[in-house]
Amino acid sequence: MLNIAITAGGTSENIDGVRKLTNVSTGSLGWNCLEAVLNYFQKKNYSDFRIFYILTETAFRKELNEKQKSLVEFISVSDAESVYKAVDELTKNVHISHFIHSMAISDFTFAYAANTCELAMEISSMQTRGEANEIAVREALENPINQFNTDEKIPSDDNIIIGLKRTKKVIPIIKQNNPETFLVGFKLLRDVSENELIDVANRLAEKNKCDMVFANQLAQIAEHNHSGMLIKNGEVIARPIGKKQIAETVVKNMLDM
Amino acid sequence: MLNIAITAGGTSENIDGVRKLTNVSTGSLGWNCLEAVLNYFQKKNYSDFRIFYILTETAFRKELNEKQKSLVEFISVSDAESVYKAVDELTKNVHISHFIHSMAISDFTFAYAANTCELAMEISSMQTRGEANEIAVREALENPINQFNTDEKIPSDDNIIIGLKRTKKVIPIIKQNNPETFLVGFKLLRDVSENELIDVANRLAEKNKCDMVFANQLAQIAEHNHSGMLIKNGEVIARPIGKKQIAETVVKNMLDM
Repeated sequence: MLNIAITAGGTSENIDGVRKLTNVSTGSLGWNCLEAVLNYFQKKNYSDFRIFYILTETAFRKELNEKQKSLVEFISVSDAESVYKAVDELTKNVHISHFIHSMAISDFTFAYAANTCELAMEISSMQTRGEANEIAVREALENPINQFNTDEKIPSDDNIIIGLKRTKKVIPIIKQNNPETFLVGFKLLRDVSENELIDVANRLAEKNKCDMVFANQLAQIAEHNHSGMLIKNGEVIARPIGKKQIAETVVKNMLDM
Repeated sequence: MLNIAITAGGTSENIDGVRKLTNVSTGSLGWNCLEAVLNYFQKKNYSDFRIFYILTETAFRKELNEKQKSLVEFISVSDAESVYKAVDELTKNVHISHFIHSMAISDFTFAYAANTCELAMEISSMQTRGEANEIAVREALENPINQFNTDEKIPSDDNIIIGLKRTKKVIPIIKQNNPETFLVGFKLLRDVSENELIDVANRLAEKNKCDMVFANQLAQIAEHNHSGMLIKNGEVIARPIGKKQIAETVVKNMLDM
């Protein structure tokens, strides 16, 4: 029995219950990967597999037929923390043979929101008391005394500052929990040269032990002409165009072994 | 000929081309209002009207039939600034008889992002130079020297600060551009008493000359049991339950005159 995991969509970090921090990911590429895996095995008349599809609230999804439904388990997540927990639990409890990690997980989560004027007052009063050294100012910027309650909607009367703190990276735990998993990572950059993109993708592959990385640029991710490079062992092995072809290329290169 | 405008969905403010600031609005209530208007006039066998439906990228929408399509003009918007422009242009150029303003427009837009440590250094070095008074600190918090370029994806190595500035309010321009428009406003609050919610809704109505306000709470906006109060002339005139009933109640009270 093969157990395949796919993550899809963009996470969203709660700010005040109404507002949130999110990203441009639609989950469409992840869904194409799900369909590509189902089609790949259907053509081979093989059904001794399960797909664990981890998706965010806003991720694109379609109806599956009854046969397909029996092969897919949906796992819903919301913010970066919930993805970390879901992936950690899944990869600890199930022997995942292949993992396509296409979800765009926020690197940051909400720490606080503060009224800009009040924060300025707080910091300048530290100077009056002779306390405005770098460490003290940084502490105030990371966790000011005057901040909005997290259970209230932030008032909209004045400009505000939002402090964001880094989230725990999800991708490293996949191979930590199971070094045998075949891991496909994704890297999206903006306005870089192709060589720079390949370099960054290779570093991602090395750091997180990805077996393949699909690297693409923000300007190239439109629905119909989404393009990029599939990289394996530091080499570009394919340049598929369109989300369907990207998904098929990823899945074929992952499963044809 | 009646010209009816409806706004729907949640705006999203760009942060760095990949990340964005958005809100929980799905556009579902706005869509229900669109359907309620179409049904209201269909029952009366009346078709001398047009609906201008202003919607955000992520707003919920369904297919309309050909007859309905001929009655609805879709206007796509993205961030608060684009809504302001679209509403201003529409209400200046078309005599809007009724305006249902259900869109959740961001009160804030992105000003800058900065590395928290670097911002702390910048402000503490002001102290060394004896410049860390309240105004100078506030200026640094509103527009620091060390901030990320807006055309680059923000690096994820360290904690960051995001500065947000207020957007221009859209709702006041509706009656400014046409005092005769019948205006329905919406107010969403979180964890307040019913009396407080009514007070805030009445202040919104007074300030922006709303003819009716639908007031609701975050805890009450689930898809199936969304509830709230329809307020007119300071009085609660209905307490509909469910988005469909809310939309029908709003539309009936707006058009039955």
